[in-house]
Amino acid sequence: MSEQSTRVVGTRTLRHDAPEKVIGRAKYTADLQAPGMAHGKILRSPHAHARIRSIDTSRAEALPGVYAVVTARDLPPYEGDSFDHRALRDSTFASDKVLHVGHPIAAVAARTLSTAEEALDLIAVDYEVLPAVVNVLDAIKPNAPILHEHLRTSSLGGAEDRPTNIAWRFEHAIGDLTAGFAEADVIVEREFTSLLVHQGYIEPQAALAIWSPDGSLTLHTSTQGSFAVRDTIVDLLKLPMADVRVIPAEVGGAFGGKNTSYIDAAAALLARKAGRPVKTVMTRAEVFLGTGPSSGTVIRIKAGANREGRLTALDAQLYYEAGAYPGSPVGSGASVMTGAYVVPNGHIEGFDIVVNKPRSSSYRAPGGTPANFALEQVVDELAEKLGMDPIEFRLINSLRNGCQNFFGHTVADIGAVEVLEAVRAHPHYNAPLGGPNRGRGVAHAYWGNWGARSSATLTVNPDGTVGLVTGSVDITGTRTSLAMQAAEALGLDYNQVKPSVGDTGNIGYSDVSAGSRTTVATGHAVVRAAEDTIARLCARAAQIWGVPVDSMSYERATRTFSSTSDPDKRITFAELAALLPQTGNVVIGVANVDIQEWGVGYGAHIVDVEVDPETGKVKLLRYTAVQDVGKAIHPPAVEGQLQGGATQGIGWALYEGYVYDANGRLLNPHLLDYKLPTALDLPMIDTVLVEVPYPKHPYGARGVGEVPIV
Amino acid sequence: MSEQSTRVVGTRTLRHDAPEKVIGRAKYTADLQAPGMAHGKILRSPHAHARIRSIDTSRAEALPGVYAVVTARDLPPYEGDSFDHRALRDSTFASDKVLHVGHPIAAVAARTLSTAEEALDLIAVDYEVLPAVVNVLDAIKPNAPILHEHLRTSSLGGAEDRPTNIAWRFEHAIGDLTAGFAEADVIVEREFTSLLVHQGYIEPQAALAIWSPDGSLTLHTSTQGSFAVRDTIVDLLKLPMADVRVIPAEVGGAFGGKNTSYIDAAAALLARKAGRPVKTVMTRAEVFLGTGPSSGTVIRIKAGANREGRLTALDAQLYYEAGAYPGSPVGSGASVMTGAYVVPNGHIEGFDIVVNKPRSSSYRAPGGTPANFALEQVVDELAEKLGMDPIEFRLINSLRNGCQNFFGHTVADIGAVEVLEAVRAHPHYNAPLGGPNRGRGVAHAYWGNWGARSSATLTVNPDGTVGLVTGSVDITGTRTSLAMQAAEALGLDYNQVKPSVGDTGNIGYSDVSAGSRTTVATGHAVVRAAEDTIARLCARAAQIWGVPVDSMSYERATRTFSSTSDPDKRITFAELAALLPQTGNVVIGVANVDIQEWGVGYGAHIVDVEVDPETGKVKLLRYTAVQDVGKAIHPPAVEGQLQGGATQGIGWALYEGYVYDANGRLLNPHLLDYKLPTALDLPMIDTVLVEVPYPKHPYGARGVGEVPIV
Repeated sequence: MSEQSTRVVGTRTLRHDAPEKVIGRAKYTADLQAPGMAHGKILRSPHAHARIRSIDTSRAEALPGVYAVVTARDLPPYEGDSFDHRALRDSTFASDKVLHVGHPIAAVAARTLSTAEEALDLIAVDYEVLPAVVNVLDAIKPNAPILHEHLRTSSLGGAEDRPTNIAWRFEHAIGDLTAGFAEADVIVEREFTSLLVHQGYIEPQAALAIWSPDGSLTLHTSTQGSFAVRDTIVDLLKLPMADVRVIPAEVGGAFGGKNTSYIDAAAALLARKAGRPVKTVMTRAEVFLGTGPSSGTVIRIKAGANREGRLTALDAQLYYEAGAYPGSPVGSGASVMTGAYVVPNGHIEGFDIVVNKPRSSSYRAPGGTPANFALEQVVDELAEKLGMDPIEFRLINSLRNGCQNFFGHTVADIGAVEVLEAVRAHPHYNAPLGGPNRGRGVAHAYWGNWGARSSATLTVNPDGTVGLVTGSVDITGTRTSLAMQAAEALGLDYNQVKPSVGDTGNIGYSDVSAGSRTTVATGHAVVRAAEDTIARLCARAAQIWGVPVDSMSYERATRTFSSTSDPDKRITFAELAALLPQTGNVVIGVANVDIQEWGVGYGAHIVDVEVDPETGKVKLLRYTAVQDVGKAIHPPAVEGQLQGGATQGIGWALYEGYVYDANGRLLNPHLLDYKLPTALDLPMIDTVLVEVPYPKHPYGARGVGEVPIV
Repeated sequence: MSEQSTRVVGTRTLRHDAPEKVIGRAKYTADLQAPGMAHGKILRSPHAHARIRSIDTSRAEALPGVYAVVTARDLPPYEGDSFDHRALRDSTFASDKVLHVGHPIAAVAARTLSTAEEALDLIAVDYEVLPAVVNVLDAIKPNAPILHEHLRTSSLGGAEDRPTNIAWRFEHAIGDLTAGFAEADVIVEREFTSLLVHQGYIEPQAALAIWSPDGSLTLHTSTQGSFAVRDTIVDLLKLPMADVRVIPAEVGGAFGGKNTSYIDAAAALLARKAGRPVKTVMTRAEVFLGTGPSSGTVIRIKAGANREGRLTALDAQLYYEAGAYPGSPVGSGASVMTGAYVVPNGHIEGFDIVVNKPRSSSYRAPGGTPANFALEQVVDELAEKLGMDPIEFRLINSLRNGCQNFFGHTVADIGAVEVLEAVRAHPHYNAPLGGPNRGRGVAHAYWGNWGARSSATLTVNPDGTVGLVTGSVDITGTRTSLAMQAAEALGLDYNQVKPSVGDTGNIGYSDVSAGSRTTVATGHAVVRAAEDTIARLCARAAQIWGVPVDSMSYERATRTFSSTSDPDKRITFAELAALLPQTGNVVIGVANVDIQEWGVGYGAHIVDVEVDPETGKVKLLRYTAVQDVGKAIHPPAVEGQLQGGATQGIGWALYEGYVYDANGRLLNPHLLDYKLPTALDLPMIDTVLVEVPYPKHPYGARGVGEVPIV
């Protein structure tokens, strides 16, 4: 379908969620109330690393107005030897040790928030404070304090039987590295360190847990994936899936940070013990101390190129902080570092390393940003040493259709070259800088995107309007981009389709809204549901007319059903919809999909800056983001993604970062001390949408949200 | 399937909704809150009949704290000549006339309830009071005041061009009435008058309307049918169906009285004008004055029988109050009156008559109760005159399979005789009365039930549990009876299926929960959705195994999928469910049905009473309700229906009734003056479930809720 002309897809419609958000009427989880509701608060560790000798909650429980106090003792016991389950459980409530400042230890539900806070002070925790390890290079030293005595890592040659802070090590190689460096005319070798940065969403995590007396749980929460939260609760609390209904509210920013469930299980445990609904809302400090930021990294790169401007060798070591429990995105760091270029000879080694900090979480293109930052610095230096234009150098080395990538896969349907050519041709790239102390930077980026599982249902109303329910939480305006695809696939106008977000009780499984997948993969589900709807409508018309179903067809352009059995039989979508109630009830089209093929994304940014030589302050003068978006389903939303991604990248590059002391205490857990970029810091970010359609999506769309921060 | 043995259907499971209701945790519409919510109140007419000269809302609008005042002027204009639409509009807000005390005129939304009440007093309505007509016999007199000057009735021979209070007249005849009375050895002629009675639900109507800035409406309301409310709103406010999302809350009793939407449109208009959510909750007096009770009736019967105990003739006139707008259930009164017996010669005439009272609404077996009460009195007198046992007399005249009913249809699959024989054999019927001033009454009843449109979806979770969503509002515990049918059809345990009630945004069209239809007709939808689910699971297993789909089958007893292509291929429901995430996502089964065939119901009750000869007070000593329920899906709920129906019938017979003065003012619009039966007034009501399966329902079920009040 990607070659057809579209009627709705690609137009500049209004976002369904925008007016409510603009006028402050959108309902977030913290806005919700329930009769008899109590307030939950979480006690967090003041130590980065300590053994818990005992927890005495009796004084807190005795405080008037306290309904319940819960700790790890209220969770079902460990399940076999699964380290993953143990990590999930221990990051909900510490059992034997705390592993970072902010590690949850206990939670209180009380009549008022202030009573709950008061009760936290009455919980006595007896700690044996242990030495902390707060960066990756310290953590891998032979005598480093060990976070997890029971962690064993089979990928460490010869060290399988000893505890370690290295949770995973991998190595990839291609070609002959020694020969590659021998061929090089220029070589650059650098080490880069990146700090933890936070996703910086506006809305802190919030959860409202309501138990039914029949033992089932309804949980309202701020999340990127209602089913992911359900599965976490099911795993931790050992409940049947059908008994856990997770209802996603509007989300005030997420950027990967709400893929993970932090306070949902605590709210659920409190509510069950208190016998009443419990709402728990994080403070900003808790967001910094108790949720997962991006990984801090140390990245070493040595790369060489020949005089013709061809990369000949790349050797890189990626040390990624996992935080308190394994799971840094070092793997995708390696993919991104090698995702844009042809690397004939290379070697990459990656380490996932636990340290006494919050467990890292996804942040927009997880793991990719520091890796690409490092590589693009080196690429620029190589080009400079060779006296080449940096875009020209990138074009020479760019992955193209038919090339093998670093991991041996032959790439197809990519738009890397088209993006670089669009940059080279852009007026911004060719404009004079216009003043002293100014410079122009470029960077090229790759991100892999994601497909996975999505569900959609479409209900045809008798007046010809259509209701769309998807299981994907809308964090970026995807109700609109999905409704547009439904309207397109049904041949309807945009305003005839009303989208809504389902919950785990009324829609099929859908993976988290992450990995730039929602518009693309849930779009597949929506288009499949539309096809199912059309098939059911064809069947109904065939039944009404008494003609064979296989004689029926639907023409989107005229919105007309017709039968080859009888040329006089023609009925419009609206006319047939009006007949549904009298001919067997309305029809619903459904689709549950698992998308295994998706396009990858490339983008390149141009930025002009002016540096104050006295203070070092960097002023942004002009910014242009160019990206292959496949097909922009909803162009304003796509442009917003490019602008938002660029803005967060600017924050990471210039302003943001967690500052720790030697004991692992975070010194800036507030937005006053942790500076996010604001509109005042930024120029207008211009966008250029390159459209190299991805042929396996119905409308050629690619995921767009992550490339721009990389 | 009706002959198979069942594993879940017919067992005594716990109702899903019961614990929350018992402990007071269930959420009703009045419990709901929304940020910035205003409170709505409705101004109602103090006159039974008056012309509105003018309405001045300016002083109310000027009152501090008032956000909006709405009247009929805020509704879109009349649509063509549709009297139905005009009636719907005028019963929302009076435009030119008020037609009963309590007729809504205007509504106010204010910051507090008391401000809203204060504002109502500031609305100046200039009335020209007109003479009222408050009973059917007065209403049909030649010079009676006319309620609707534009009402014309084609069924009145020769009077089509004159205004009338008779909105509909019908006549049915069979055989030769004169000959029938000539054959009679005994004749009884009687006139019966019945008062209006209310459904007596505990929860007054409530609605919470929330507009989105995109022009769409979310309405939480207490209703028997979310789609019926949606369609009323769409009709009155002229909105696209997809833009109106009606979410049903738990319902605190309905009994037909919540099939109709009373305050939903007012709440919606107020909320739109106020620019904020508006909640409107009726008081008890408003429930009496502003919602539809059953019709008051005058019924004349003349019936004859011969010495053998055979009915030879029946002549009846039914005068039913419609209230302010046409639509009394006089037609179903005629059906019920003739639904249990063979009537060889008969004539029935029915009148739907408007009077200055609230428009009548459905009340459990609408129209049937007064008609059957009248007929059964006459039947008892005929039996007495003939010296026959009243059950014996009824058995002689009972409709049986293969007989023609009064309307010429040949009846099949009915259990009338089985019910009467169960009464005759019951110990209660044969027990001594045991004291003076005691008597024993029996009555036999028919009700026609209903099928119509229902929708259901089933989602299979990876842990083998299943979520069920239906569009039927649960007013009687139908979540449970539907989940039981889903479990049965899927071969699962009862607790593996979690039911929930959808809303108009996430499930297909479903008619109101009324007419004893939900367990039966929505049960069809659930079973069809289960069959669809099994088909999809078979397809998935076939895909996994690489075998043809048509080789697959599912055995419920062992919960095993197997393929005839390969006897080694066997997988259980739970095992296959666990494979779904990795093989293309979960599956959803859907069904949207319109059930055109349904069983009819018969029941007979036995009651012993003792009358105090001094005061006339009637004391109930013993009560037994016998009914053909087809197949009791959830026996405790069925027994509860029989007990509840009997109780409401006792209230109607002994305690309840609207008392009006000559000007149409209701004198007892409070539960202190309008006595409902309580547990203290009642003996235990024993139930006997006769099961004559209805063969066209998957499990043989019949609707059960309405027969017992008839």
